[in-house]
Amino acid sequence: MVSGLTLYDYWFSGNGWKVRTLLRRLGLPFTIQWVDILRGEQHEPWFRAKNPVGQIPVIEDPSGRIWTESNAILETWSEGTPLLPSGHQRHQVRAWLNFEQTWIDGVISRARFRRLFPTVIPTSEAFFTAWRAEGERALRTLDEHLESVEYMVAGRFTVADIGLYAYVHVAQDADFQLTEYPALTAWIRRVAREDGVLPVADNPEAPLACTPRQ
Amino acid sequence: MVSGLTLYDYWFSGNGWKVRTLLRRLGLPFTIQWVDILRGEQHEPWFRAKNPVGQIPVIEDPSGRIWTESNAILETWSEGTPLLPSGHQRHQVRAWLNFEQTWIDGVISRARFRRLFPTVIPTSEAFFTAWRAEGERALRTLDEHLESVEYMVAGRFTVADIGLYAYVHVAQDADFQLTEYPALTAWIRRVAREDGVLPVADNPEAPLACTPRQ
Repeated sequence: MVSGLTLYDYWFSGNGWKVRTLLRRLGLPFTIQWVDILRGEQHEPWFRAKNPVGQIPVIEDPSGRIWTESNAILETWSEGTPLLPSGHQRHQVRAWLNFEQTWIDGVISRARFRRLFPTVIPTSEAFFTAWRAEGERALRTLDEHLESVEYMVAGRFTVADIGLYAYVHVAQDADFQLTEYPALTAWIRRVAREDGVLPVADNPEAPLACTPRQ
Repeated sequence: MVSGLTLYDYWFSGNGWKVRTLLRRLGLPFTIQWVDILRGEQHEPWFRAKNPVGQIPVIEDPSGRIWTESNAILETWSEGTPLLPSGHQRHQVRAWLNFEQTWIDGVISRARFRRLFPTVIPTSEAFFTAWRAEGERALRTLDEHLESVEYMVAGRFTVADIGLYAYVHVAQDADFQLTEYPALTAWIRRVAREDGVLPVADNPEAPLACTPRQ
């Protein structure tokens, strides 16, 4: 695998956390370049030249190739490692990552961002009410699945766990009560003990100049 | 590949369309079983036993294995065919499918469903306003990308095109004006000519009993 990767990321991002965690777990060295998404830096021309979608995280490899979309990166970069099973189990990883994208990233992550930074995208309570119903259903689905298994797929820690943990373990930032989901809470504790897993805003890679501005 | 597949689907679903189109293109025979998502049939116990997430489409293969999540199915079932390139291009397919999931399925598809069936999930105009801004940005991103390429990835028709076309070509159902995006409109015409591509609600597999109820 290549080394000398640059990760375009921002400190509180769960999607950035997914990639940071994967690279740490794989032992791949990387340099973080923060993109201040609270100031809209992801829409500036220099960044859109790398990712026209205007989103972090992005990996730039030493040959200049660009790798976007956190869940896509989880699967691509774990290929051939124990973090990605094969066959039908690989499909299950892929399906859970898609579930994450719609119901966790699309719901809990949005609610969290707007609670943490209420002035960036002013949002009426009607949206939070809709997200609450959808997010609770998603957490219940995960809780029921985890009643009979220790990890999401294949009985072991995979990128499905990394992808889901990112915003689930901070769902309280979006006013969800994780204590209502005992199997999910046990899984959170289990994943937290895995090598490479650090809290979402705990970035040992962060240069001092990039501590939270809020 | 296996044959004798059952596809759990519903006639107006763009996510179902993705899978129908892929299976037709691959020449894999399948039987459709409609799941009436307007009546909430996807939440009934018999269906949740197949997919605890309570979503169509679902493929059940002859050995009883279950394959969920339309974008995951697109990648899994196109493996080893010209519809899925390799290496960095494969990552690009994966990344565009993730983009689709957040900004097309998560935005345009939602707006479309609630415009087509306004009584199923009553929705205030504030949501449509938010979806309009996000959907327009997504369509603009696709339009700009397609100014210099004929297909999304690898210069040929891939599952990235199938995934994106599903809800983009019916975006007018959600009040988007596709004529504002000329490169995207040209791509829609191009994809419509591909083998296996039929309009979303045109299901030759549909039993007569399952024509639209509206």
